[in-house]
Amino acid sequence: MTFMDELKRTARDVDTLLDALLPLDGAAAPRLVEAMRYSALGQGKRLRPFLLRESARIHGADDARALRAGAALECVHCYSLIHDDLPAMDDDDLRRGQPTCHKRFDEATAILAGDGLLTHAFFILAAPQTHPDAAVRAELITGLARDSGHEGMAGGQMLDLQAEARASHDEAEVLAVQNLKTGALFGFACEAGAILAGRPKEDRARMRRYAGHIGLAFQIADDILDVESTPEELGKATGKDAGAGKATFIDLYGLDGARARARELVETAQEALSPYGEEADNLRQAARFIIERRK
Amino acid sequence: MTFMDELKRTARDVDTLLDALLPLDGAAAPRLVEAMRYSALGQGKRLRPFLLRESARIHGADDARALRAGAALECVHCYSLIHDDLPAMDDDDLRRGQPTCHKRFDEATAILAGDGLLTHAFFILAAPQTHPDAAVRAELITGLARDSGHEGMAGGQMLDLQAEARASHDEAEVLAVQNLKTGALFGFACEAGAILAGRPKEDRARMRRYAGHIGLAFQIADDILDVESTPEELGKATGKDAGAGKATFIDLYGLDGARARARELVETAQEALSPYGEEADNLRQAARFIIERRK
Repeated sequence: MTFMDELKRTARDVDTLLDALLPLDGAAAPRLVEAMRYSALGQGKRLRPFLLRESARIHGADDARALRAGAALECVHCYSLIHDDLPAMDDDDLRRGQPTCHKRFDEATAILAGDGLLTHAFFILAAPQTHPDAAVRAELITGLARDSGHEGMAGGQMLDLQAEARASHDEAEVLAVQNLKTGALFGFACEAGAILAGRPKEDRARMRRYAGHIGLAFQIADDILDVESTPEELGKATGKDAGAGKATFIDLYGLDGARARARELVETAQEALSPYGEEADNLRQAARFIIERRK
Repeated sequence: MTFMDELKRTARDVDTLLDALLPLDGAAAPRLVEAMRYSALGQGKRLRPFLLRESARIHGADDARALRAGAALECVHCYSLIHDDLPAMDDDDLRRGQPTCHKRFDEATAILAGDGLLTHAFFILAAPQTHPDAAVRAELITGLARDSGHEGMAGGQMLDLQAEARASHDEAEVLAVQNLKTGALFGFACEAGAILAGRPKEDRARMRRYAGHIGLAFQIADDILDVESTPEELGKATGKDAGAGKATFIDLYGLDGARARARELVETAQEALSPYGEEADNLRQAARFIIERRK
């Protein structure tokens, strides 16, 4: 299978699993589950679950367990998109080519759908099917909570909103925001594979180095797409970040400089994988995909 | 110590612990941690942590562990208050006599503070200090996620919002909403003590029966206070629920009927505790406190 086939396979597998983990049949609050399913199913590249699954594979962890952990991670990613899109946050109407959750339902339902997906992520991780050893499950939960909470992704979103209020941004500030906002969940994705395999700290640290580089490359690529794409291509509003005074890498490096920096980061990320040899080729391709994608 | 002294002691202990678990010093996003601390510290009866601690005590579980689990539970309770108070939800300006989180900060910060507290609850539960056996921690996480998520509290809040749109409410509907919205977290509080002590299913089921009765009694008392109190006494807006078309127990039973029903529920709750003898006296007093409180 080519890399794109592998990525699509993971997208299908994540969808099938999330469909089973979020049944509408018998739901206590059907409208809420509908909204959660609307935002979690059928869309998205599923890049984070793919990274988690590949990291699990090269470290020798069971694939079905990695897929469950990936589905939990995707719940957190989708919750963050729902809440980030709210009128009080980035106020976006379009996401993945469809109305955002609060547009399709309403704001209250969208807030609750985000809350529900975040909560469900920990429910999924805590179940014995994720790993027979509860200590491993607890480690995954600790990692996901840290990387998605106030010292991770949520903290990054707070800093990003605060940055909008300032006129200019230096490199250290932009890096700090993005390392939390985007980097932390990439870090969890890549580290979780090593956690599932019970691998030592060195493997976990190496995977986080790889993740740190591709996380930044991903965000730079996002900033480039925001400038260069149309809403039709991207499935969401474009050209918003500069207008909103957001701290972007284009401001820092310029468009050509940003492209060069992203390529450098991908190379450094790939080098971090050298101890794994050819086994890590999918992760190397994922790094390239991150800066070559068109959405 | 009297019951009220015991309740105040737990409130102080929860505060001290949450203060340590949410340090502002060195925070990645200080404004976010400030907002989380604003809503989680210094206020509230801490009734749920008290129930958890008492349940742990009568089942023979370690008190420091129960306090940690109680602090995690309180993070979830406080997150739910922040999000419920948002303009898109119940749109409240006052909570515990102070401006609500989105009034004191702003909506975006309040959404993130709720997200952060919810996430932090699972971080706290997953840490080895909560229980040396990771399987016990995983059970607590499973329980808290179920009771606070789309099949628990969040589901109940969804149903409550939907009920506002309807002209009349029957008893089955009101009970279903409140069992999820209020009952589920009370259920977790009471069951968690038995989980921490490694007690069998029967003890857990008995504690959930007690919790089910006091949860309903609590909500009936809330509905009575909403009608009878002033905002100054209650520290939040009053008389709102009936105006908003919310499904309340006063509509169902009338004021006197609601009082009688609450007393019945407290008696039934107290009977469920008979196997524990005098050891459970604090929990019996908690049941009475729930309907006699003035806020």
